[in-house]
Amino acid sequence: MPAPQALPPSWRDDAVAAGIITLLLIPQSLAYALLAGLPAELGLAASIVPALAYAAVGTSPVSVMGPGAVLSLMTAQALQHALAVAPEGTSAAALAGVLALETGAVLLLGAALRFDALVALLSVPVLHGFMTGAALTIVITQLPVLAGSSSGGTRLVDVAAGWLGAARPGHLLTLGITVAAITLLWLGRRAGGQAGRAAPLAVMALAIAGAALADASGHGVAVVGALPALAIRPTWPALDPALWRLMLPSAALLALLVSVEHLAVAGSLAARRRQHLVPRRELCGLGGANLLAALSGGMPVGGGLSRSAVAFEANARSLRVGVIVAGLMALSALLLAAPLALLPRAVLAATIVLAASSMLDLQPFRLAWRYAREEFWVMLGVAALTVLASMEVALSVGVALSAALLLQRTADPHVARIGRVPGTEHYRNIERHATEEQPGVVALRIDESLLFTNARDLGSLVQDQLDEDTRRVVLQMSPVNAIDFSGLTALLALDEALHARGVRLDLAEVKGPLMDRLKTADWAARAHGRVFLSMHQALQPDADPR
Amino acid sequence: MPAPQALPPSWRDDAVAAGIITLLLIPQSLAYALLAGLPAELGLAASIVPALAYAAVGTSPVSVMGPGAVLSLMTAQALQHALAVAPEGTSAAALAGVLALETGAVLLLGAALRFDALVALLSVPVLHGFMTGAALTIVITQLPVLAGSSSGGTRLVDVAAGWLGAARPGHLLTLGITVAAITLLWLGRRAGGQAGRAAPLAVMALAIAGAALADASGHGVAVVGALPALAIRPTWPALDPALWRLMLPSAALLALLVSVEHLAVAGSLAARRRQHLVPRRELCGLGGANLLAALSGGMPVGGGLSRSAVAFEANARSLRVGVIVAGLMALSALLLAAPLALLPRAVLAATIVLAASSMLDLQPFRLAWRYAREEFWVMLGVAALTVLASMEVALSVGVALSAALLLQRTADPHVARIGRVPGTEHYRNIERHATEEQPGVVALRIDESLLFTNARDLGSLVQDQLDEDTRRVVLQMSPVNAIDFSGLTALLALDEALHARGVRLDLAEVKGPLMDRLKTADWAARAHGRVFLSMHQALQPDADPR
Repeated sequence: MPAPQALPPSWRDDAVAAGIITLLLIPQSLAYALLAGLPAELGLAASIVPALAYAAVGTSPVSVMGPGAVLSLMTAQALQHALAVAPEGTSAAALAGVLALETGAVLLLGAALRFDALVALLSVPVLHGFMTGAALTIVITQLPVLAGSSSGGTRLVDVAAGWLGAARPGHLLTLGITVAAITLLWLGRRAGGQAGRAAPLAVMALAIAGAALADASGHGVAVVGALPALAIRPTWPALDPALWRLMLPSAALLALLVSVEHLAVAGSLAARRRQHLVPRRELCGLGGANLLAALSGGMPVGGGLSRSAVAFEANARSLRVGVIVAGLMALSALLLAAPLALLPRAVLAATIVLAASSMLDLQPFRLAWRYAREEFWVMLGVAALTVLASMEVALSVGVALSAALLLQRTADPHVARIGRVPGTEHYRNIERHATEEQPGVVALRIDESLLFTNARDLGSLVQDQLDEDTRRVVLQMSPVNAIDFSGLTALLALDEALHARGVRLDLAEVKGPLMDRLKTADWAARAHGRVFLSMHQALQPDADPR
Repeated sequence: MPAPQALPPSWRDDAVAAGIITLLLIPQSLAYALLAGLPAELGLAASIVPALAYAAVGTSPVSVMGPGAVLSLMTAQALQHALAVAPEGTSAAALAGVLALETGAVLLLGAALRFDALVALLSVPVLHGFMTGAALTIVITQLPVLAGSSSGGTRLVDVAAGWLGAARPGHLLTLGITVAAITLLWLGRRAGGQAGRAAPLAVMALAIAGAALADASGHGVAVVGALPALAIRPTWPALDPALWRLMLPSAALLALLVSVEHLAVAGSLAARRRQHLVPRRELCGLGGANLLAALSGGMPVGGGLSRSAVAFEANARSLRVGVIVAGLMALSALLLAAPLALLPRAVLAATIVLAASSMLDLQPFRLAWRYAREEFWVMLGVAALTVLASMEVALSVGVALSAALLLQRTADPHVARIGRVPGTEHYRNIERHATEEQPGVVALRIDESLLFTNARDLGSLVQDQLDEDTRRVVLQMSPVNAIDFSGLTALLALDEALHARGVRLDLAEVKGPLMDRLKTADWAARAHGRVFLSMHQALQPDADPR
């Protein structure tokens, strides 16, 4: 065993990464708590104990738990809805605790019941449309704060209505602070690197100093205000069954989003290091983090897109990073409470707007427009519904449309009549390639699995290709990846119908797993034709015994 | 123009077919009206004008509109539900009119909006499970009638409760008539042919004669009772918007079932004559028939499974058949009203039970058990839900499960590493066949389209197959029938990830339509590898320029 020297290199890497993440997390934790409509200190609380919980269970060193932009918007919408119907005196903080607790429970249940497969339901168009719509909504909710208005709201329609009816629609000094903050943040981002990552905290420090010198609060600038002394203590969320039922749908949606975002981000970063995530352990990590967020007086948490990217770049190597960040955050909360109280809210709003605007990416819209027009409309529709209706509606409609497009795609398969590419053993569409055909034999390729969605049309698809001289039909089965029960029924009926016309139905290139299935249905005994290893063998002169 | 001689042969064929169908339709029309909980004369009315409407619009000579077993059960359940909440004094006949009118309207709307594609949603397991459950339910509803009980009900639970609490749980003379009728019907069916088809009407004639001689009604046997004089006159269904809203879901379900059954039965019979149905015209024909059923005082109608089979065997050749049947049915209704009044209801119940029991077929259950265990459970589940819950629940659950199974099937594709079958240009799974591989090249076949359900796993699926020496990956694209936007994104990311590892990703055997799509996404410019016509060309020594 080597003698303990200074910190080993990976410790040093991890400590540096943790420092950088903390620089990012201090403004994020305050800003996202305010975005969620919660007191700022809930964001700080949610950045300490949950990070420890994930470090104990999770596997990704680049994921540090804390509040996130989209999560906070979802929390805001859920709380706004719940506050309207909850018993009088219920605080937003109590509801946030219930929401985090239920989100954690759903995640743990999902891990136990292997629900991580449900994550696959969110297609790229749905997810990108949703993220775009959420980013736009986040920007919209921050506009009144940036302008110095006293109004609020978590949806486009509330924000617009609130702003129009606001007692103070704008405030000139606040607007000036906003312009200065956005300019500095934007310059920081353009500079990139260390400067870029430190920019939010530097801008905050500048703003605090400026606000203290100029008595901004006295001149009508909204500030964060006094933070209670940090005391991480067990908190038990409100035990009202009606509240629990009320928050459950939002919690399920949050759980889905937290897992999708985390598995996508942490998964792709792990793959770059040729590592794998274990989805179930990740769900447990996320679930534990949210449970402990609830029990330590926080709000729903997730892995965080920007934090993970920064941690990856900073070469975060082990789960220690999360532990160090938790310690640094606790220290910051203790030391910085007094100065943070002076921070203008508009500065936090500016950091939110910059973060959200970096989520806007038109490239996928452009590519989808050219490559898959229907999916472009799904993407745009989900984005629009996210802004105009609600996140739940947008995601439900998006998932239903994705599934419907998939079903519809299988319903109307492309059928190609194929012939031999001369001089090869390769068979291709006779209309696209110069090919040779055998007289009396129709060779067909149906480009789809045989499924209930297309089974009803199989018979006429094939029989439409025959003429009076046809005595054999050979189906190239390489595009047929599955034959469900309806497909089997249709294929048997086709064999029977062709047999009645004096035509033999042969199969070629049936894949191994499919052939195993067909054997369980006694294909050889029921059908009248033969099965060939390759198209080329099926079309040898001696392949037809008649 | 030839001199008019006797009837031309096809006229004679059609007249004979019409006669046979009428023999079948007289007992059916009465029995199914009673099964639906409606006065018997509604069944007669529904067998006259609707047949004319279909003959004017439809295309299938073997389809003669009239009441059907499953339709009548659905009507019974819809009416029972509606009668419980309709304003007092609303008659079942008025509700049946509303139901038929709405069913017709939904069918016409479906034809206009091309909803016939929705029919594909009913997979074989769902449809067979549903038909099995419906047949069992029909048998169950007739049991009290067969036993001579005074109780009723349209679902297992109502029938059981009604029978247990019935004032008259059974009646010996009725039971005797039941046993005699079932025996004769069963012998007739075993005999088959002409005797079999005439059996129901012969049994009815016998039963009427016996009932008249022995004064069955006076001894407590339930009989059909006096039929009002047949008067086909315009009837306008009740104009109550609340009733219309109430019946709409049932009407939509009826429309779906009527179209599925009709397109399946008439479609497969047309195919046997190498003819095609035009689905939209058929929906129009069915819609018109139901509209006119409503306006002439009838009940919902459909093509009828047993009638179509009989008409096909009897060589029905033109739509005249329906017109002749309508005439014969009108004549029968005028002439036979008096004797039909004496017919014991148990005899009609016996014809229903025999017809329903012929719908029971265990063969698909056995095949599904061996071939596709999950689909067996769907079939059984839908059958059980049809009996125990309701038809709506059973079909909704069945369709959702079918779609979920399809999505799940695409989510977890089979991946095969492939090599050359020696002496051929054919490439197969190296674990199933004796094959040759090229050093440094991994040839893979992913047996599924690249879709959002599996896109997230594509990267790790492929990268798991690589080792340190790999410098090329060749994907055989013949099983890939589609690449949706999520799949494209994943494939581009895979290309990028492999490129970063110094590995080139090539594609082979990309199908024509798919290559066209990839070109819209600038595949050649974005990706680092090449596209080959065939696997064999991709694996030639000169295919790798490095």
